[in-house]
Amino acid sequence: MPVYGTRLTLGLLKPKLREHRILRESDLREVRIGDAVQLGPFRVEAVSVCHSIPDAVGLSIETPVGRVVYTSDFKLDPAPPDGLPTDMARFKSLGDEGVLLLLSDSTNSEREGHSGSERDLHAPFERIFGSAPGRIVVANFASNIHRIQHLVRMAIQFERRVAVVGRSLQQNFKTSRELGFLKVPEGLTVPLEEADRIPSSKLLLLTAGSQGEPMSALTRFAAQRHPLVNVRKGDWVVISARPIPGNERMVHQTVNNLYRHGARVFYSEVGNVHVTGHAQREELREMLDATRPRYFIPVHGEYRQLLQHAELAREAGVPDDRVVVVEDGEAVELDAKSIERGEKISTGLVFVDGLGVGDVEQVVLRDRRHLAEDGILVVTLALDRDTGSLRAGPDLLSRGVIEPELSSNLMADARKAAVDVIKRLADSRDLNILQEAIHDAVSKTVWRQTRRRPMVIPVVTEI
Amino acid sequence: MPVYGTRLTLGLLKPKLREHRILRESDLREVRIGDAVQLGPFRVEAVSVCHSIPDAVGLSIETPVGRVVYTSDFKLDPAPPDGLPTDMARFKSLGDEGVLLLLSDSTNSEREGHSGSERDLHAPFERIFGSAPGRIVVANFASNIHRIQHLVRMAIQFERRVAVVGRSLQQNFKTSRELGFLKVPEGLTVPLEEADRIPSSKLLLLTAGSQGEPMSALTRFAAQRHPLVNVRKGDWVVISARPIPGNERMVHQTVNNLYRHGARVFYSEVGNVHVTGHAQREELREMLDATRPRYFIPVHGEYRQLLQHAELAREAGVPDDRVVVVEDGEAVELDAKSIERGEKISTGLVFVDGLGVGDVEQVVLRDRRHLAEDGILVVTLALDRDTGSLRAGPDLLSRGVIEPELSSNLMADARKAAVDVIKRLADSRDLNILQEAIHDAVSKTVWRQTRRRPMVIPVVTEI
Repeated sequence: MPVYGTRLTLGLLKPKLREHRILRESDLREVRIGDAVQLGPFRVEAVSVCHSIPDAVGLSIETPVGRVVYTSDFKLDPAPPDGLPTDMARFKSLGDEGVLLLLSDSTNSEREGHSGSERDLHAPFERIFGSAPGRIVVANFASNIHRIQHLVRMAIQFERRVAVVGRSLQQNFKTSRELGFLKVPEGLTVPLEEADRIPSSKLLLLTAGSQGEPMSALTRFAAQRHPLVNVRKGDWVVISARPIPGNERMVHQTVNNLYRHGARVFYSEVGNVHVTGHAQREELREMLDATRPRYFIPVHGEYRQLLQHAELAREAGVPDDRVVVVEDGEAVELDAKSIERGEKISTGLVFVDGLGVGDVEQVVLRDRRHLAEDGILVVTLALDRDTGSLRAGPDLLSRGVIEPELSSNLMADARKAAVDVIKRLADSRDLNILQEAIHDAVSKTVWRQTRRRPMVIPVVTEI
Repeated sequence: MPVYGTRLTLGLLKPKLREHRILRESDLREVRIGDAVQLGPFRVEAVSVCHSIPDAVGLSIETPVGRVVYTSDFKLDPAPPDGLPTDMARFKSLGDEGVLLLLSDSTNSEREGHSGSERDLHAPFERIFGSAPGRIVVANFASNIHRIQHLVRMAIQFERRVAVVGRSLQQNFKTSRELGFLKVPEGLTVPLEEADRIPSSKLLLLTAGSQGEPMSALTRFAAQRHPLVNVRKGDWVVISARPIPGNERMVHQTVNNLYRHGARVFYSEVGNVHVTGHAQREELREMLDATRPRYFIPVHGEYRQLLQHAELAREAGVPDDRVVVVEDGEAVELDAKSIERGEKISTGLVFVDGLGVGDVEQVVLRDRRHLAEDGILVVTLALDRDTGSLRAGPDLLSRGVIEPELSSNLMADARKAAVDVIKRLADSRDLNILQEAIHDAVSKTVWRQTRRRPMVIPVVTEI
């Protein structure tokens, strides 16, 4: 299948395809902003949008039943770093021509007002660069090329050399620079291995890991577990990103670690060191007013954010029955006169574990959860095939149930429970019944003494 | 040991002691605000502070080396709901008499300005109560008696009956009311079982569970899994609390569920429906300025918050070497002329699992983690005690490794690996060596085919 993308998008994609060894068979086709591509019955036009990454586009898709506009991630930055704003004139003219359906970014639909400009960071950055006595370390998303450009300019202005930490960021830095999206003068950067030769007050370290990801460069830097650079007293560290909901605790852990090692830290709660790349309610309203869609589907967000965006669309005049809030897997059937929910499609996560794709599902997860919560107790014994008499065992083996040095009483009692069952059922000769009875007796003994329910597995061998 | 507390504190404590059947042997002694208690060499005075719970006190402790002031959780609410502000006059006079050490609440030390007043919620609440077409449901902390009082007043004003959901909140409601800290007119409340008889527009439900705790009333209400009351279309739900860092995802999940069932939701991101109970920087500065301590230790907060508070103390004029930031377990030795770090004391979590206290430690946790991530594979076999020949098995049994219906090839290969080892080591007769070799061969086979590392446990029986 051909894959269409803008120059930078394809540039960032290629190393990943190469890594997975599928670059050569990939059919990548570059689209420039303003270009349109005919794809079967669809004519797809790339419309410039401003986001935290340059060369971003929304899509206007002419279909046989009408035009569908997809904003992609966007914001309305009045002073975009690369001079390329979201092309509201084009969205407006699309609205004039008629938009059947708008799909728009809901990430910040809960936030009133305007998202501000990358330019708003200039003053806080100047204060930090103007005062930092030693190294400055800035963490942000590896894809936030605008922010990286901004920081490169700060480095030039304050005469600091730049070292880039972390593989993904190094890769993006290199690609964006090669393609001309990141302007970095010759001689500004210094390889990370040589960063220690630069005086602290002349060095800016750029890293990824702004979400406190356990293996990321910033996390390892903060915990002094990075092979090349580690936090030290006097560093000023800027986490120039907002924690994605759910990551707060990891980010705070990183901040705590940085403080413990004597760094000064600027982060979402302290210092204005981040602006969002996603439109807030004023901007979302502007997009709705420009395109004046017949139908509206909020996309990109949790249910609560989709709902808030739907509410906004109603305020903007889209009638209630033309706004559809859908979640992953809910199909929507659209024609010029109607919008309806279609069938549910099976979607969701496919677990990849080691080399396995999709071989970890309900049973494995249930068992792992059980093992994680209560451990396992295996009861092995051997019965004589002819007489049914006990030839070996029962032996108990536990993992994750109780600390080994405290386990002897419990194990002795559980063993006794198993022995009692074996004696009682000596004549039955039904292995299934025996195993079940051992399972129940051992489980009961453990439950009575500990109120725990380890997975109990009797293994009966006939010899 | 005697336990001292104010009237409401002891009132809230008693049901918990009763539940754990230790109320009768407890020696509870009531202290009133302004009272002082002599405890050995210490004279401890209870100083009124305003917090989200009434009858809260800070402590002024006269010791042989000087006075230690502990603020407890506090804020400076200019219009406290019960008319009892933080007693800054007393803190000031303590400062005049001389404060050796101040320990102060650091929860909001990252937040500039002032925490505002419970009164600030009045207008938002009036808008909600004035417009809600159906039931109003408000979730907050079960201990936030001030907020509950505020909501009771709103219910009176807007002629709604009040039903309380959730055991802890019901208990606190009852206790606070009995002790006179919560003023609720006769006939206002309605038992939860009878709440459905009240018209929706005349009902206010108060619940705990503002943190999205999985088993809490609000979470079950939102997921329609509560035995008595569940969310329905037209409900207006107010989550009147800020998520504690780390709980954001659970809270958002609850909000999503409420929206899915057609409720309107007000929460930290949408609507101003919460004020904090903890002082922000302006107030913290005021406390520092009032007490003018010789030494300062920030307490109540993550490391980052302690650091920010320490910084504030320096700004307030406490010399750098008299501010000590310590974490749990770090002792501090104080006399009239010096403050020093003492020895480390072993502190931390003690895991309670079922009836066991402290019997889940390193080994169990490591095993459970391993089991949770990769599952377990048990290899059982029986050898002839005399000849060393294989009498039964090897049989493989796996849990949490791979979905059972996909496991046959892998299990066959692993079994073959075990058989090969047994053949190869037929003559050695050393069970330990044999078990280790089986472990390695099976692990290797599984790793090669799946890149997973289940816990592999060979069980060899001699018969």
